[in-house]
Formats: sequence, C-alpha cells, structure tokens
Amino acid sequence: MHNYKELLSLFESKLEKEIETTGHRQPKYLYEPVAYTLKAGGKRIRPVLLLMAHELYNNQLEKAIPAAIAIEMFHNFTLLHDDIMDNASLRRNNETVHVKYSYNTAILSGDAMSILSYEYLNRVDSKNFREIFSIFTNTALKICEGQQFDMDFENQNTVTVDNYLDMIGMKTAVLIAASLKIGALTANAPMHEANLLYEFGYNLGMAFQLRDDYLDTFGNTHTFGKKIGGDIVSNKKTYLMLKALELANDELSTKLRALMENAAISADIKIKQVISVYEQLDVAKLTIDKMEEYYQKALLCWENLNVSNNQKQELLLLANTMMNRTN
Amino acid sequence: MHNYKELLSLFESKLEKEIETTGHRQPKYLYEPVAYTLKAGGKRIRPVLLLMAHELYNNQLEKAIPAAIAIEMFHNFTLLHDDIMDNASLRRNNETVHVKYSYNTAILSGDAMSILSYEYLNRVDSKNFREIFSIFTNTALKICEGQQFDMDFENQNTVTVDNYLDMIGMKTAVLIAASLKIGALTANAPMHEANLLYEFGYNLGMAFQLRDDYLDTFGNTHTFGKKIGGDIVSNKKTYLMLKALELANDELSTKLRALMENAAISADIKIKQVISVYEQLDVAKLTIDKMEEYYQKALLCWENLNVSNNQKQELLLLANTMMNRTN
Repeated sequence: MHNYKELLSLFESKLEKEIETTGHRQPKYLYEPVAYTLKAGGKRIRPVLLLMAHELYNNQLEKAIPAAIAIEMFHNFTLLHDDIMDNASLRRNNETVHVKYSYNTAILSGDAMSILSYEYLNRVDSKNFREIFSIFTNTALKICEGQQFDMDFENQNTVTVDNYLDMIGMKTAVLIAASLKIGALTANAPMHEANLLYEFGYNLGMAFQLRDDYLDTFGNTHTFGKKIGGDIVSNKKTYLMLKALELANDELSTKLRALMENAAISADIKIKQVISVYEQLDVAKLTIDKMEEYYQKALLCWENLNVSNNQKQELLLLANTMMNRTN
Repeated sequence: MHNYKELLSLFESKLEKEIETTGHRQPKYLYEPVAYTLKAGGKRIRPVLLLMAHELYNNQLEKAIPAAIAIEMFHNFTLLHDDIMDNASLRRNNETVHVKYSYNTAILSGDAMSILSYEYLNRVDSKNFREIFSIFTNTALKICEGQQFDMDFENQNTVTVDNYLDMIGMKTAVLIAASLKIGALTANAPMHEANLLYEFGYNLGMAFQLRDDYLDTFGNTHTFGKKIGGDIVSNKKTYLMLKALELANDELSTKLRALMENAAISADIKIKQVISVYEQLDVAKLTIDKMEEYYQKALLCWENLNVSNNQKQELLLLANTMMNRTN
C-alpha cells in the first residue's frame, strides 16, 4: 500500500504530462486556461482517495489513473465556474481565470474542462465502465444542484440546518464519496465494498466541510492561511450561523440578524460580536460535535471494509489528516 | 421510412415528457431554465437526422431516442452559453436565459445541460456505446474549440477563408455529422456506412452554414424572419466578408475596412455600401458556388450509402429542405 505522499506524487507526475499536452492544444485561449487552472494545484485529495480505494482491491494503479484525472478535472471545472459566479478574484493565490483572461474565456474553458473530464473518463478500461459513468454523471449533476442551492440560500431567510447539510452533501461530500467508489470499481471490488467506501467518503466529506466552516471562524490566523471571519463578514449561511439562528432566543436572534443587515459596521467589530453570540450558544462545540458525528460514521464504514487493517490503514491516516488539517 | 414531419413529431412527444420531468426537478432555478431553453423549440434538425440515420438500418426507433435527446440537449446547452458570451438578449423570439433569469443562473443551468446530455447518453443501450460516447465527447470538445476560434476571429485581422471554413466546421458541421453517425451506430450499421453518413453530414452542415451567411445579407426580409444585414452591421467575419477581403484590390479593401471601422455610419448605409462591394466582387455567386460544392460532396456520400433509394429518399428530402430554407 502506498501512502498519501506517494500516491500524490504518482498522480501529479501523470497529471503534469496531461497538463503539458492540454496546454498546447489549439485554440490557445480555450486550453491554456485549462492548464493554468490544473497547474495551480491544491491537495488533490479526490484523485488520491480514488487511487487509495483502487489499491485496496487491486495493485494495478495505472488502471485507476484516467478516472482520477477525470475527477480532478471535473472538480477544477466546478471551481473555475464557481469563481465566476462568486466573483472571486483569487484562487490558491493565483488570479482566477475570469480575471486573468476574461469572463467569456472562463465560461468556455470551464465548459471544455467539463467535457475533458468525460474524455478522460472514456479512457477507463473496466468492465464496470457503465456503472462508473453513471456515478460520475449523477455526481456531476448533484454538484450543480448543490451550487444552485448555495446561491439560492443567499436570498432566503428560512434556510435550516438540515437544508444546509443537504446542500454541502451535494456540493462537497458526493464528489469525495464518488471518488472512492469509482476507485473501488476500477479495481473490480465487490459492489458492497464500493458502496461502503461511498458512505465512508460521504461522511468524511461532510465532516471535512464542517471543519472548513469551523476553521473560518475559530481557526488560527497563522495556520489557516487566510483571514479569519470571512464567512461572518460575507453573511455566509454556514453551519455555525444556521445553528446559532436555530438556537437563539428572540434577543440573540434579533442581534444576529441586525449584525448581518448592518452594512456600516466594521468587519472586525462584526466578527467579534457574532463570535460573542456563537460563544453564548456554544456553537463551536456543537459544530465540532456534528463533525465528530459524521467522522464516527465514516470510521464505522472503514471498519466494516473487508480488507485487512494493514491494507486499509493509509486510508484512515489520510482521513485523519483531512480532519486535523489547520488550513 | 418516416418523413421529417413524422420523426419530428415522434421526437417532440418524447422530448416533451423529458422537459416536463426536468422542469420539475429541484432546485427550481437550476432546472426551470433548462426546460425553458428546450421548450423554445427550433427545427430539431439534429435529433431528426439522428433518427433518420438510425431508421436506414433498423426500425426500432426507440433505441435511438436517448441519443437524440442527448444531442438536442447538448446543442441547446451551447446556444445558452453562446448567448451569454455574445451578450444576446433574444433567442427564437424569447428572452435569453441570462436576461430572463441571471448570468449565474445561465452559467450553471448550461453546465447542468451539458451534464444532462451525458445523462441521456448513458441511457443508450447499444453494443457500440463506447464508440458513441467517443464521438459525442470529441464533437462536444470541437464545438467549444469552434466557439473559441469564432471569438478569437473578432479581434484578428488576418483571418482567412480557410480559417473560417475550419471554424464553422467545428462550430456547426461536426454536430450534424455526429448526429447522423451516432444514429447509424445505435442501429448497428456497418462502420463504413456510419462514416459515410458522418461525411454526408459534415458537408451538409458546411453548406447549411454558408447558406446562413448568404441569407443574412442576400435573403428576403419577408421570409428571412430577422433583419437583413445583421452580420454586416456587427462586422462579422463571415464567408462573404472574408471572400471579399481576399479578392478585393487595394481600393476596395481599403473601402471595406473603412466601412468596418466607421462607428458613426448608419446601419442602412453601411449595409448598402458593403453589398455594393460584394456585388463588384461577385461574392453572392461565389458563396452559392461554395455552398453547392459542399452540397454536391454530401450528395455523393448519400449516393454511396448501401441502402435502397427508396429507403434513403427522406434523408435527401430533408437535406434539400435544409438547403432551400429561406429562414
């Protein structure tokens, strides 16, 4: 069994070649932004999880590479288009594509990435191809649905904690889940195992996203890498905010809504005051509890995998790293 | 053999059901614009060509329906995103999606349509599925490439007639070609026949696009349905304009470029003067000749199809209609 670092290094060497080829395809302004986006990196968690799942059942990692690239391509496509929709100017410390190139280039290059992900998927040589294709497409559509719900929530005052959990399930957890299941299927794992890995990934993805919400407010500025409180400043309806609104009495609820509607307040004061409400309602602990609940569900799935502990320990280590990350 | 009208009616009844289902999927603002776009209609030439090609070799039309819907879905996705990029406010007399809803909705609904086209493709039950998937994906990517070249050309002064023909090949002809080939493959036609149909469709598509260029300038206002001269007013580098620039002597070339750069000139005068240059260079006839050249190539493919004339006559009739259309 290879560990995260080894699989990452294997994946990146494969991806680099594809980036090189893609970046030179014509027309330049369609493919150069694709290469630019893929080059920017990121942790490559999804493709590495896919390779790890594959290796639980088969050591021919080559067989899993095209699917791993397809997943990473699709993930980066969603980031590219999300950045247009969120009007974000930076991604992984680089200018976003619509800033560096243009809106139209960003739309069209994103479209191409979405199709390119199917081009890679089409290189998958597996008797489970149709099943893999189904999972991939269903997941892709769910991610769009999650993004739409996320945008809808911005203008809705009635979003519940459950709505939010459903949304992050679609926007984040299903792709992590699908990566693992597809990895298992490229290795011809039994369907029961593939489904367990899906459930493992789904719960891990949920915990991962909740940790993200937590860190944005309660993280350490030095290790987090970006400014603390961004979600509060932008009135983002995170798990923390929705839980607070759910638990708040009239007075605190009024205070929170007033803070959200106050356009004149300074960012620092707003962050401080919202956090003070969170503290009164014990929101930090409740978020960690929820995260832990998902993580425990994930662990149960992991335990039930019909693979020796020795074989599957790297998967647990990676899950642990994802939960203990500080950025 | 069914004729165009019968196949159109069959296709539309199937599509209508899918629109109904899709329009009710959640979240509303992801799927309602998809249904809105598909409902707007159009001639459904691509899916009907697909069904016609299928019926040359197999009369189980049901087998071809999912691929026909996939093709129509993908075509409408490209129109939706092209309209954002072209900043168009009307499509088939309806407000475009980014005008009726919002830019973000248009981007994301388009993304969903692109993926939905793969959802329908995944319903194709055929031993040729992998081949069909390849053609579909290659074609989809070529269409993006064509759109990028089209956008690039706007800012390039060195575009040649050949560049233009390559571009419309990607943007228009390959999808018509792919529709026919995929139709043949869902019917398990011999690969040689499927390839002949591809070539038939490619040439037909080229002729079809050239006719489009021709009509925009030399069409009849009453039958064309939109104002004549739109391409001239917007300085579009059509076959007509590029052919004129290729043939023009210094004096006429200078005149054409001056007309293109003159922002103060009235639309009517600009149209009149550009047409007068076109007339001096015989551009109308040259365009029709080129169109005819492609159409003859298409006919040769049609003749070589190993299917009785009686069987394949509806395909010829439809091709004829496409070439004689006045709008």
